[in-house]
Amino acid sequence: MKVDGVSYRTIWPAADGAAVEVIDQTRLPFAFVIRRLTTVAEIAAAIRTMVVRGAPLIGAAAGYGMALACQADAADTNIDRAHTTLLATRPTAVNLKWALDRMRKGIRAAPPESRRREAYRTAALICDEDVAANRAIGEHGHALIDALWTKKRRQGRLNVLTHCNAGWLATVDWGTALAPVYRAHDAGVPVHVYVDETRPRNQGARLTAWELLKHGVPHTLIADNAGGHLLQHGAVDLVLVGTDRTTGSGDVANKIGTYLKALAASDNGVPFYVAAPSSSIDFGLDDGVRQIPIEERDARELTEIEGEVATGQTAVVRLAPHGSPALNVGFDVTPARLVTALITERGVCDASRAGLARLFPEATGSGA
Amino acid sequence: MKVDGVSYRTIWPAADGAAVEVIDQTRLPFAFVIRRLTTVAEIAAAIRTMVVRGAPLIGAAAGYGMALACQADAADTNIDRAHTTLLATRPTAVNLKWALDRMRKGIRAAPPESRRREAYRTAALICDEDVAANRAIGEHGHALIDALWTKKRRQGRLNVLTHCNAGWLATVDWGTALAPVYRAHDAGVPVHVYVDETRPRNQGARLTAWELLKHGVPHTLIADNAGGHLLQHGAVDLVLVGTDRTTGSGDVANKIGTYLKALAASDNGVPFYVAAPSSSIDFGLDDGVRQIPIEERDARELTEIEGEVATGQTAVVRLAPHGSPALNVGFDVTPARLVTALITERGVCDASRAGLARLFPEATGSGA
Repeated sequence: MKVDGVSYRTIWPAADGAAVEVIDQTRLPFAFVIRRLTTVAEIAAAIRTMVVRGAPLIGAAAGYGMALACQADAADTNIDRAHTTLLATRPTAVNLKWALDRMRKGIRAAPPESRRREAYRTAALICDEDVAANRAIGEHGHALIDALWTKKRRQGRLNVLTHCNAGWLATVDWGTALAPVYRAHDAGVPVHVYVDETRPRNQGARLTAWELLKHGVPHTLIADNAGGHLLQHGAVDLVLVGTDRTTGSGDVANKIGTYLKALAASDNGVPFYVAAPSSSIDFGLDDGVRQIPIEERDARELTEIEGEVATGQTAVVRLAPHGSPALNVGFDVTPARLVTALITERGVCDASRAGLARLFPEATGSGA
Repeated sequence: MKVDGVSYRTIWPAADGAAVEVIDQTRLPFAFVIRRLTTVAEIAAAIRTMVVRGAPLIGAAAGYGMALACQADAADTNIDRAHTTLLATRPTAVNLKWALDRMRKGIRAAPPESRRREAYRTAALICDEDVAANRAIGEHGHALIDALWTKKRRQGRLNVLTHCNAGWLATVDWGTALAPVYRAHDAGVPVHVYVDETRPRNQGARLTAWELLKHGVPHTLIADNAGGHLLQHGAVDLVLVGTDRTTGSGDVANKIGTYLKALAASDNGVPFYVAAPSSSIDFGLDDGVRQIPIEERDARELTEIEGEVATGQTAVVRLAPHGSPALNVGFDVTPARLVTALITERGVCDASRAGLARLFPEATGSGA
């Protein structure tokens, strides 16, 4: 996608071949900064501190982390160590393990002298496949949006509610949940997006609003609390979110608060779609609430916040009384029964084992 | 309630009889500041800017606003003007109209020479009645909490989830939703409160956490997004909130986001109680979603936030990209079907016309 007229991905190998470069997402929307990462430790820190975030981008970053490991030392022990280090960065997104396993397998299968090249090749492939998957999700989702727009007699605007950031910044390019929005917008559907600010990290306010603004998609920032009211009053035509891990049975782990929006969509008969590339589907799991590990992060992400002061610089302010403890849970699980459908790169399906088996027969067979 | 050992109400007539004093709730938790208000315009501004807030306290402040109007000029035209000015400050809480109508009726019935005295007397009565009602709500709610505690075999702790601030700061004293919590805590039940931060004004983080901290009630601050996850995992024994206006049929208008918590409580079989003094019940209304006016406030309450910087001073920071519009809806309506029961000063009842008729036969008869 473009930033002020220049095309960017969120991650790419540096021109000198000795590092990886990423957009530093902790600085947006106040500053657009490119960060150069040269070691496994730097990649791990970037994932942990959310310089890069979003399940697909975490996978891609981990891929390049393995390539950097190979560059330093392509021996099995070092590859295994890098796998362990990177896997420990964040627990919920399954793309991380998916990408790391794939990288390790590819590296180990290669002879020592070509491991570095093989690793960079596979990391690039993971990125390109992500872009292709998101483009396909965009197509399939666009068809759903277009059908709703026709149902609305193509009058007024088509209102999407989204939570967190599942836009191009969460992926290598295009986004998952926002790919259909960009496609529909570019095709002339008057899409308007209600953007949950997404406390406590405010990815909606900081990243989704910024993305949509840069691409010219009409949008309105709202508090996470507001979605129920909007749904109750017919102001939302569909809810569209991403996922960090979806079970083979269709339960969806996504940013904390997603479950509440799914309940409200269901209560008001509004479709709730989840954009789920297969890299985020954990076919072996059956019970999302019990089986998906949910990350707990530093409470200061809730009690302190960074913003821009009048001078244009940023500052951190404290929001809560000194002495009040806080709990910061990163994700929740939306049961499959609340999900209208999954939008995958292979098409749209029921959020169920049967639905997924139709599109991914090879995966559901082995995962059961 | 006590602040650092000194007993306070949230509003009281000044010692010199020429003004009203209030705790400035826009300064908490960073500073404890008493504000002196001397005119109707100052009272109206204090309500509008949320120096005083919370449905019962808004009613009490409006009462004293009418008394200040009488003090300046006790003629009917001035009383009517004050009624109009104060009624226009905020649309959702019905206590405002309830208190203003009662004040005007009392003032008009009095001869000119005793109107001022009559007005101060009625305003004080509204305050005292609020305290008595909240104390009674505390008793009835304590019984509910105690029953849940017994059901839990009196083991571990009893977890309450609350939204916004319905504590003593929202009333003259004691609070509505927090009155049962204080009672249960003081009676030795190990109550623990999950406090929704309550975006965008953060009344949970700023006021509820502060109140609970000052009284020594164990609590944990959470993002508004987190309640669904906690309910799903059995971490909440009951949800307990206040109300700005409840219809005669039991629909509950309360701080934006309440409806989402009610859906999650219902989805997980956890009781959802609303502390509703009769002053906040609009017996004449039947359909909360359609009939209760919902306040829309300045979008900057969402895109900017005040907090404490390292020096101990406060600063305002911007949270969203310049150019992204925002919508700030103050309240939502929880349909009666999601409300386990209302806790009123006369006891606990179904959130229904029949339930309310049993406790308030005089009001439901005239209101239908």
